[in-house]
Amino acid sequence: MSDALTSAVDDITLRAWAYLSRVAEPPCPLLARFVADVGPVAAAQAIRAGAEPAKLTERVQARRGVDRAGADIDQLHQRGWRLLTPHHPEWPYLAFSSFPAVARTKPQGWPPMVLWAQGPAALDEVALRAAAIVGTRAATAYGEYVAADLAGGLVERDVAVVSGGAYGIDGAAHRATLSAEGTTVAILAGGLDIPYPAGHSALLHRIGASGLLVTEYPPGERPARYRFLTRNRLVAAFSGASVVVEAGLRSGAANTAAWARELGRVVCAVPGPVTSSASAGCHELLRGGAQLVTRADEVVELVGRAGELADEPVHPASALDGLGEGERRVYEALPARGVHTTEQVSVGAAMPADQVLGPLALLEVAGLIERHLDGWRIVPGQT
Amino acid sequence: MSDALTSAVDDITLRAWAYLSRVAEPPCPLLARFVADVGPVAAAQAIRAGAEPAKLTERVQARRGVDRAGADIDQLHQRGWRLLTPHHPEWPYLAFSSFPAVARTKPQGWPPMVLWAQGPAALDEVALRAAAIVGTRAATAYGEYVAADLAGGLVERDVAVVSGGAYGIDGAAHRATLSAEGTTVAILAGGLDIPYPAGHSALLHRIGASGLLVTEYPPGERPARYRFLTRNRLVAAFSGASVVVEAGLRSGAANTAAWARELGRVVCAVPGPVTSSASAGCHELLRGGAQLVTRADEVVELVGRAGELADEPVHPASALDGLGEGERRVYEALPARGVHTTEQVSVGAAMPADQVLGPLALLEVAGLIERHLDGWRIVPGQT
Repeated sequence: MSDALTSAVDDITLRAWAYLSRVAEPPCPLLARFVADVGPVAAAQAIRAGAEPAKLTERVQARRGVDRAGADIDQLHQRGWRLLTPHHPEWPYLAFSSFPAVARTKPQGWPPMVLWAQGPAALDEVALRAAAIVGTRAATAYGEYVAADLAGGLVERDVAVVSGGAYGIDGAAHRATLSAEGTTVAILAGGLDIPYPAGHSALLHRIGASGLLVTEYPPGERPARYRFLTRNRLVAAFSGASVVVEAGLRSGAANTAAWARELGRVVCAVPGPVTSSASAGCHELLRGGAQLVTRADEVVELVGRAGELADEPVHPASALDGLGEGERRVYEALPARGVHTTEQVSVGAAMPADQVLGPLALLEVAGLIERHLDGWRIVPGQT
Repeated sequence: MSDALTSAVDDITLRAWAYLSRVAEPPCPLLARFVADVGPVAAAQAIRAGAEPAKLTERVQARRGVDRAGADIDQLHQRGWRLLTPHHPEWPYLAFSSFPAVARTKPQGWPPMVLWAQGPAALDEVALRAAAIVGTRAATAYGEYVAADLAGGLVERDVAVVSGGAYGIDGAAHRATLSAEGTTVAILAGGLDIPYPAGHSALLHRIGASGLLVTEYPPGERPARYRFLTRNRLVAAFSGASVVVEAGLRSGAANTAAWARELGRVVCAVPGPVTSSASAGCHELLRGGAQLVTRADEVVELVGRAGELADEPVHPASALDGLGEGERRVYEALPARGVHTTEQVSVGAAMPADQVLGPLALLEVAGLIERHLDGWRIVPGQT
């Protein structure tokens, strides 16, 4: 599918997009608007020639002479990547629909101009039913277990798992999704050819082979700290809910959560021991209004179709559950041992003797007490 | 103080109260109103004689012949107990001020008519600055640790710790409060002379010697399940906030939390591992709107005087914190190793060369980068 669509875009246009993808640090709304106005080919030509709108100059001046577009597109064809733009049928319009409001409050709050993608999943479809699982690189065994458990549960309910490909929580979520043969998406803060962190090369390769790798950075670009923060808005944007599994008080996951909130997505956090610094950021989020989640069902309820409600937790049942107020009171007025007269039960329950007879009979029928010649006794082990 | 006050009430009145305390299962608003109308001595006489208002008969009929009042008062004098009534200066009016609204919705939602108390603390004063720490009897080591840690922190901030004297969380909270020489109050579901659970006899004795034991049940009365539930409303009433530390999905602590909510108190819960069934009830409360707390300061903020705010959690600092947007971007565009020209930094940061010079100079002054003959390099280990 994607090959046919990509080839429908002529190579000149594709090269222009590749050039534009690199010429300004994303997101660059000025550039995006210029491209929307004049088209990608004319925009690229103008910038190469130094003929762009004056206010755009500062953003493109440093890199206007860097032209790797030909090599980028060769690499794209060789590796089976896709260069998604707003003209591409896979462009996830819905995921970006809440950006206009955010752009007024956050300088980075703009949708991407282009996205580089690798993998069989279709981004627009994935983004309709996805949850982000994110968290600290310094995860504990508890956090990794919970991340994997949540991911497995989301796969069962056909929800895609989006994360950032990092060590710790991200990695646990990606791996568990792959193991369960679900769809997982890693949003990168550098080029598709720059696996980061290096120790996750094999994992990212598997994600690109069965799910989706997505980035707004052109090939060869290294991740940098501000790019992780910029990247985080896309993790939030592609997910109906963002679940922070473990996070310290200073954590990139809190940044993803902030983007999710800005974008009108649900921010979820998993609680953990208050003695664990790896859960401190989650608890801070929860104190600030994030939704507490303990299992995948509760996340599905937030990202799913209307009516997909989580099961109520199962409360342990007791033989006393079905009893009325009177029976219960009579039962509890009976000491655990020994036979007691109706009169004694009446005094114990502070109920008139004629009002304890009904409850006593009912309790006998229920097998909770036994009738003796001189009174009543509890049947042990029934409650 | 309390001795002088108690002795100011004549013995006939005291015996009447003791009789009334036992004659109906509390809370009994009909009885309380009758006593308020005619006084305790006349009310006791009328009930003994079967001359009470007709609608009260059902509530007092079973026990009207039980008269242990003399023995009760002897025991009270011998053991230094107090029988608190609305006429007693220690009566905690404020703690009961929100009951009228609750009584419309819950059958047990009435203040007590009398309270039996033992211990040097004054209930009315304690209730002005107290928090309840409650939870499951089947506590984990984590739960007991957190209960003790919270209790210790509350004592430091001069907050009394109220609980139910049970095994598990309750016991851990009481013990830690005693160890820290703070004030702890156990609300019992039976008579002051019936230590329950028996394994906490010594603990309850210590609480009665240094803090306060309180119950609405007369001496000799055994706890029963419905009495625990009735008792829980007093745990909530005497506390500005009720903190559930650990609770299963079916837990008395959830009942205390429900009373606290009804009474307009703050309901708090401590999170724990989502893998621990002992925290499942806490997480359910938190999902239902309870306030997440992780340490004593956050509880003090809720029960304390206005303005007693918890410290913000300390976020780990980074040398980059003080940097502006431009400096940060330039810094992060510099690869971790090697010397890079101003031109390379400009391209990396996508900022015009003349705009990176200022940030580079500032980063040099901050000791984060070094100037070399042919460019700039990161000073390792500074961030």
